[in-house]
This record gives sequence, C-alpha cells and structure tokens, in this order.
Amino acid sequence: MQGVIETLKWIGGPDGRLELIDQRLLPGRYEKLCCRTPSQVYEAICTLAVRGAPAIGIAAAYGVCLAVGAVKDTASAHQAVEAVEKACDHLAASRPTAVNLFWALQRMRSKASQVLAAAPSASARIIKDAMLEEANAICMQDRRACEAIGQNGLFIIPEGGAVLTHCNAGALATAGIGTALAPMYLAHRLGRRFCVYVDETRPLLQGARLTAWELMQAGIEAVLICDNMAATLMQQAKIHAVITGADRIAANGDTANKVGTLGLSIIARHYRVPFYIAAPTSTIDLTCRTGADIPVEHRDGQEVRQNTAPQDIQVYNPAFDITPSANITAIITERGILDPINPEAIFRHIVP
Amino acid sequence: MQGVIETLKWIGGPDGRLELIDQRLLPGRYEKLCCRTPSQVYEAICTLAVRGAPAIGIAAAYGVCLAVGAVKDTASAHQAVEAVEKACDHLAASRPTAVNLFWALQRMRSKASQVLAAAPSASARIIKDAMLEEANAICMQDRRACEAIGQNGLFIIPEGGAVLTHCNAGALATAGIGTALAPMYLAHRLGRRFCVYVDETRPLLQGARLTAWELMQAGIEAVLICDNMAATLMQQAKIHAVITGADRIAANGDTANKVGTLGLSIIARHYRVPFYIAAPTSTIDLTCRTGADIPVEHRDGQEVRQNTAPQDIQVYNPAFDITPSANITAIITERGILDPINPEAIFRHIVP
Repeated sequence: MQGVIETLKWIGGPDGRLELIDQRLLPGRYEKLCCRTPSQVYEAICTLAVRGAPAIGIAAAYGVCLAVGAVKDTASAHQAVEAVEKACDHLAASRPTAVNLFWALQRMRSKASQVLAAAPSASARIIKDAMLEEANAICMQDRRACEAIGQNGLFIIPEGGAVLTHCNAGALATAGIGTALAPMYLAHRLGRRFCVYVDETRPLLQGARLTAWELMQAGIEAVLICDNMAATLMQQAKIHAVITGADRIAANGDTANKVGTLGLSIIARHYRVPFYIAAPTSTIDLTCRTGADIPVEHRDGQEVRQNTAPQDIQVYNPAFDITPSANITAIITERGILDPINPEAIFRHIVP
Repeated sequence: MQGVIETLKWIGGPDGRLELIDQRLLPGRYEKLCCRTPSQVYEAICTLAVRGAPAIGIAAAYGVCLAVGAVKDTASAHQAVEAVEKACDHLAASRPTAVNLFWALQRMRSKASQVLAAAPSASARIIKDAMLEEANAICMQDRRACEAIGQNGLFIIPEGGAVLTHCNAGALATAGIGTALAPMYLAHRLGRRFCVYVDETRPLLQGARLTAWELMQAGIEAVLICDNMAATLMQQAKIHAVITGADRIAANGDTANKVGTLGLSIIARHYRVPFYIAAPTSTIDLTCRTGADIPVEHRDGQEVRQNTAPQDIQVYNPAFDITPSANITAIITERGILDPINPEAIFRHIVP
C-alpha cells in the first residue's frame, strides 16, 4: 500500500520540497500539491489538502524543514533555530484538535535546541540536516506504527463479516497504511473476506471521497452509507465491529475524533457492537485529564450549507466530538491494545 | 401558515387540476408544479416533488380526482369507479412505506363504491363530485389534525430552550402546519422563544432544504446541523426534546420514519432526552403488528454517491428506519398523546 498511496513525500535534501496528494480533489482528480514554504504547508493543513491526525503532524514537521531550508547554510545555527521556532509557532496555529500536530512540532523544537546546545557555534547547516533527519524519523515511525496497529487490530476483522468505519483513518491520513484501516489492509493481504461499511462523513465527506476511494484501490469490498444509516445496519446485526481513528486521546481514555464518532459509539453500545479506536500512541495527550480538556475545532458554516440550504441559516459545525472512554471497547495502538478501564495508568506505562 | 405555504392546492371543480410546490427545487427556487393526470401525480410522488406522509396521501387522493375527471360526465358511474380503481392501483405503487398513501386511497375507493352502490345507474358525474368532495375532506381533516397535533404537542416546546428535529414534518409535508413542526408554529404564535436544531437529513437534505426554509419563513430561530452532530449537542445538554414525524406506526408503537430517526432515538435515550413522534392517527397501521412488518423503501445509490464518491462504489440507501416503541417517550396525535406502553390497546381505542 505504501508504494501505492504516497500521502506525503519529501523530495530532495535539506533544501528540498514537500509533495502532498491534494485530498480536496479526490476522488475526482489525483493531483500532487508541491509545498516550498511553511506557509504553503500551513494553508494545506487549514484547507484539508492534507488531513488526518498523523499526516498533519508529519506535514508540519516537514513544514519546519522548509522554513529552515530557506536559511542560508552560512547563517548561524542559532539563526536556524530561530527559524524553527517561528515555523513551529505558525504551524501550531493551523488546526487545534489533533495532538499529533503539537507532538511532532515539539519533537522538531526539542531536536533543534538539543543540536544547538551540543554545537552552539555551528552553522545553520547542522540544524537543517537535523530537522530533515527528525522529520524523516517521525514519518518512518508513523509508517511502522501503522503496520503494528494493523497487526494488533487484525482480530477485529471478521472472516465473512462486516465492520463499519467513520471518516478517513487510512493511508491518506498517515504515512503508512492508516490506523483504523490498517487491520483491514492486513486482513485483506491475508485473504480474509469481509466488507467495510463506510460512513460518508458529513460535511466534508472524507468517508465517501477518501475511504471509499482507497479501499476500492486496494480491492477491499466497501459499501457507502450516509452517517445516519449506521443504526439501522446495527439493528439488523450486520455490523460486527466499529473502528475509527482518533485526533486526541485524553488521559482517562476519552477520545476526540471526527464529529459523528460519539453518536456511533452510543449506537454501537446500545446494540452491543464492539467499538474500537485505532491510533498511534502519539495521539495520547496526558496533559488532557479528560475529553473536556480537548479543544474542539469549529469550522465555517458554509461547509454544511453548501449551495443547498438557505444561505442565511445559522449553522453549528464542530469538526470533532468527544467519545467517553466508557463507550470504547479498546484502543488499538502500535504498542498494544489498551483497555480503557483505568486507562491513565496504562497510558503512563505505555507512553515513552 | 396555511396561507403562506400551500403545499397542495386543487384548482377548479371536479375537472380541475392539482398544483404542488415543487419541493425538489427548494429552497433555491419556489415553483408550482401543475398535475393534470394521475401519472403526473405518481411521478411527483416518486421523485419527491411532493413528499411527507400526510401530503402524499392527499396528493394521491387528488390524483384519483384527476383520473375520474378525465371520464366523460355522460359515462356511467360504473365506468367512473373503474377509473378510480385503476388510478388507486397505480398511485399505490408510487412509494411503499408511508401508510397515509394507502389510507387515503382506501378512503377514495370506499367512497366511490359506496356512492355507486347507492346510485348504480347514475352518471359518472356523481362519482366525480364525490371524489373531489372526499379528497377535499381528507385535505381539510389533515389541516385540522395538524392544528390539533400542534396544540397537543405545545408542552414539548421549552421557553428559552431548544428542540431537535429530523427531516421535514412541517407545512411542506402536510396540508396544514405540519406534524413535528406544528407545536413549534403554535408556540411561536404564542410568543414563546426557543431554538430548533435542524438535522440536514442526508441523502436528500429535506432538513437543510425544506425544514430550514420553512422555519426561517416563519421567523422561528433555526440552526442547521449535520445528522452526525446531534449526539454532541445532547452530550452538552443543549437539546430539551427531539420531535420527528412518522411514515407508519405499527400496532406495538414501532415507528417507521426517515432514515436516521432510529439512531437519534438511541442517542436521545442514552442522554435521557425525551423523544417524541408527531403524526395523525391515519399514520397508525394496525395491520402491522410490529415494525418488522413495515416495508422499507430502498432508493437509488446515486442519491448518496452524487458527484462526490467513486461512481462505482456500492451503496446501501434505505429511505426509512424503524424506531422501536421502547425508544419513544410519547406519540403526539390529533386525538391526544399516546404512551407507547401497551400502544396496541390505545391505538385500537383511538383509531376510528
């Protein structure tokens, strides 16, 4: 899969550029978006050309590389670190909910100041090299995490059965084979036969546009539904498990994910359908005690109105909602499966 | 309100025509669709130019008038009744779920054979007159039922609070002020201040297009949301009641309504938000023992795909779902409020 869908790709050395699949155009058009400045990365994140918690973290890390790449090799390391800090501040303001963004930027900052502390009188070049190395490490780590999540979540995919997913937590949301979709890719490789019901995921239809597209690319059987049809499928016992990604997981296991996840979790609980979250441990934010501490992004009402509704109607458009850990059967991470009972202790154990 | 939104209007005498607001074009364009044949009414129902359980019953009744209107006055009453029967068979095949359609057509059939039995050698004219009289009676009865539902449901609308509705069960779904929206219209007339959250209602967006439009026309505060955002509103205790219409209510109180209603009812139950169905008693079908006996219409997958999803993806597109009576706090009818505990007995008592 990684060979097929290259959601993000760094081209060249420390003075290179970032190529993204422009996800605003899928599935109608498959085009690459080339970012040469951190502002272009910022814009790509804001407008969802690149989206998905792990992917925006990686994109932001490469955005820092673009910022420091613009610093002359002959400038001081100190000047390069200033450029890193400025880019991190800028990129951190792109979207508020997915913690992987802040996690990745924090890694970039730490690495820069660490290298500077070790060689305070070096030239900018040493920081530029270190930044690309760190961004590549974040990217590779995500790819490996996806594979491990896929392995750890394989048990979810029922031979001859069906799972349901919301939004897109696939290859297009990561540098690898996705989080929620990773077990599906691996099960498919193993020849397991199953069907994936795909919530279209209003308002921006990441399910209909992205998940449907990438599952079909892989030859996995997919059936598109409107978000409001999941309950009738579960009532008919057609869904064996629900699995989604996550944008931020609080210390108590409460999970922010694409709006609609909370409702799905309640319906799944009602029908006793297991409900799983799949995410790398970089999505866990121990500074948030509960879901109430997670900031939820609200987006422009026009995303909901489109050309269809009265143009002057008020709109409530949160991009995410908070699923309480009580509704979550288990959280599948690259380091193992977390039971959200007493998750804080487990998280403190599992997070590096 | 009736003066403002004339969802259906018969123009002229027994040889007249039926004018409908073409609801496929709202809110962008407000145009009347003129039906002069039962086939045009059939087409209008199939393509949702007219929709809403009470409204399609009334439209079908007038469709019968159009059929019998084409019979020469000098033909026999028997020939006229044959035209009635043929039109009823045809119109009954337009949509399967809303029982009001079959209820209205049954009234037309019964009236025709009753008049024929009383005057077997009369001319067609007597049947034509009787058919228009019966269709007008069905229409007027619906208008009165809407007002009574509004009165009986007034208690639901919280001063300073908010209710949530799904799809459109308003003036555009009836000949009067609607079913689920009727209490809102009356509360607004009384000066009560409240807010209505409107589920956009995928795939055909009757909430975003029709409910949003008619509430704004009436000056009632409305906020549009995607269907998948209702749970986060209830989690924040922003919704004081949910109220929807119904397409068919079984003898045990199980209710078929627009797909998405079931999920809403489960989420409302989870958050202990009262969940009401508002419908005229003509929506109750005692021949269906439970919701499992109600036929659910499945519609074309292209309604979900649109231009957005991969064009070859499979789609599951039921137009309705079945909410078990256990999830329903009460059913508001024109004859009173039904507690869905032991509803069959109540229904047998209440239905004429």
